[in-house]
Amino acid sequence: MANYKMIIQYDGTRYKGWQRQKTTDQTIQGKIEAILSRQYGRTIEIDGSGRTDAGVHAHGQVANFRLPDACCAGKTPEELCEELRQIFVQYLPEDIAVTEVRVASERFHSRLNVVKKTYVYRIWNADYPNVFERKYMLHDNRPMDVEAMRQAAQYLLGKHDFAAFCGNAKMKKSTVRTIHEIDIRRIGEEIRFTYTGNGFLQNMIRILTGTLVDVGCSVYPPERVVEILASKVRAEAGPTMPAQGLTLWEVIY
Amino acid sequence: MANYKMIIQYDGTRYKGWQRQKTTDQTIQGKIEAILSRQYGRTIEIDGSGRTDAGVHAHGQVANFRLPDACCAGKTPEELCEELRQIFVQYLPEDIAVTEVRVASERFHSRLNVVKKTYVYRIWNADYPNVFERKYMLHDNRPMDVEAMRQAAQYLLGKHDFAAFCGNAKMKKSTVRTIHEIDIRRIGEEIRFTYTGNGFLQNMIRILTGTLVDVGCSVYPPERVVEILASKVRAEAGPTMPAQGLTLWEVIY
Repeated sequence: MANYKMIIQYDGTRYKGWQRQKTTDQTIQGKIEAILSRQYGRTIEIDGSGRTDAGVHAHGQVANFRLPDACCAGKTPEELCEELRQIFVQYLPEDIAVTEVRVASERFHSRLNVVKKTYVYRIWNADYPNVFERKYMLHDNRPMDVEAMRQAAQYLLGKHDFAAFCGNAKMKKSTVRTIHEIDIRRIGEEIRFTYTGNGFLQNMIRILTGTLVDVGCSVYPPERVVEILASKVRAEAGPTMPAQGLTLWEVIY
Repeated sequence: MANYKMIIQYDGTRYKGWQRQKTTDQTIQGKIEAILSRQYGRTIEIDGSGRTDAGVHAHGQVANFRLPDACCAGKTPEELCEELRQIFVQYLPEDIAVTEVRVASERFHSRLNVVKKTYVYRIWNADYPNVFERKYMLHDNRPMDVEAMRQAAQYLLGKHDFAAFCGNAKMKKSTVRTIHEIDIRRIGEEIRFTYTGNGFLQNMIRILTGTLVDVGCSVYPPERVVEILASKVRAEAGPTMPAQGLTLWEVIY
């Protein structure tokens, strides 16, 4: 049973998120599993690097899965990779694409082996809307002080208890995470936030961005972020930003 | 009656093209005129720099129009520009945006004063589809020789009779045009064709691109373009490429 690793891109607009659900077939994992299971005549499950929420996009989601020998009809793993690529091009809807399929080591696990993840949050910061990328950015025309947001972001770097930035009020596991880098830059009329860390809590990027935007709009000064972090209270932080601006950019192993 | 110039962006996917039609309200010009006419209580017509076909996009379409003094309620032209911007943000659908409105000179005419126009044709040249920009590119995974296409493009530069590249078989006016520049480049998995000229015939960019792609795919050698041009016969040139890959990029006055 060879272990296959794939990279997946999706426009999350139409979907209820990554994770398979019993009550809807509108999930990314569900769509891919349905295609594989139909193709190979048995239930095939895939493991993603992590969930993405409803409406969130992915530029480089990673998943792995095994194909039972009975499905392989004497084909080599490399031949099966090519077969899989063609199946995905043929059967996936136009808002999901598998950009890469290759044989991974037997022990590779797309969730357990994650070293770092990068997420991007995009805000279109102009008076008029963005016609072409409207589904991938949040439109917010308030003046934003990028320098103040950068200063605030410095307080979030490193290993902290991010309980104040966790969207799951009943979280029982550790809320300690490490953020390696937060890059904030203006690209024309866009403000782009890029977060890299060893893992992120539910809604964490969206709450971090909501808090930084509060700082950028002078709702409170950059130093306030230190108190929010120390409080460990969700209500102290900024709003959860809408899903449409968020993209899982890259998963590093 | 001040003369207003505006820059318009649109995702042309849902529309029957730029030009107002009696049989459908799904045109860009029709949408903008309907908003202005309703707002100011009388028929207001706008002049675009030129038509775009059904499904073609615009990054920088230009139009101008006059507001009768009776509509201005004592406001200065600058105040009216701001009012117009707000009206467009409020009432335009999400796939049309007016990015700029300003007072133009009394004699400015968006079609008659055009000096140069730039169009972009985008091809996504990978095995897997592009999820995020799928509506703005044509997906074609055939290997393409960019150098051969560049060589062929050289023969098209300058002033020529482009009858072989005209989609209107009954064209009665001159089919002579001047192409100043054709830039062809690979940007990651994308191949981008950028055409600048003093004006283009109906479907001309799409037929030029179809011909260059024929060259890129070795259907015929670059030199064949010289014969096609000299023939002045539409059937000698390549296919009319689909509208979705085409964007009116910029109009220069």
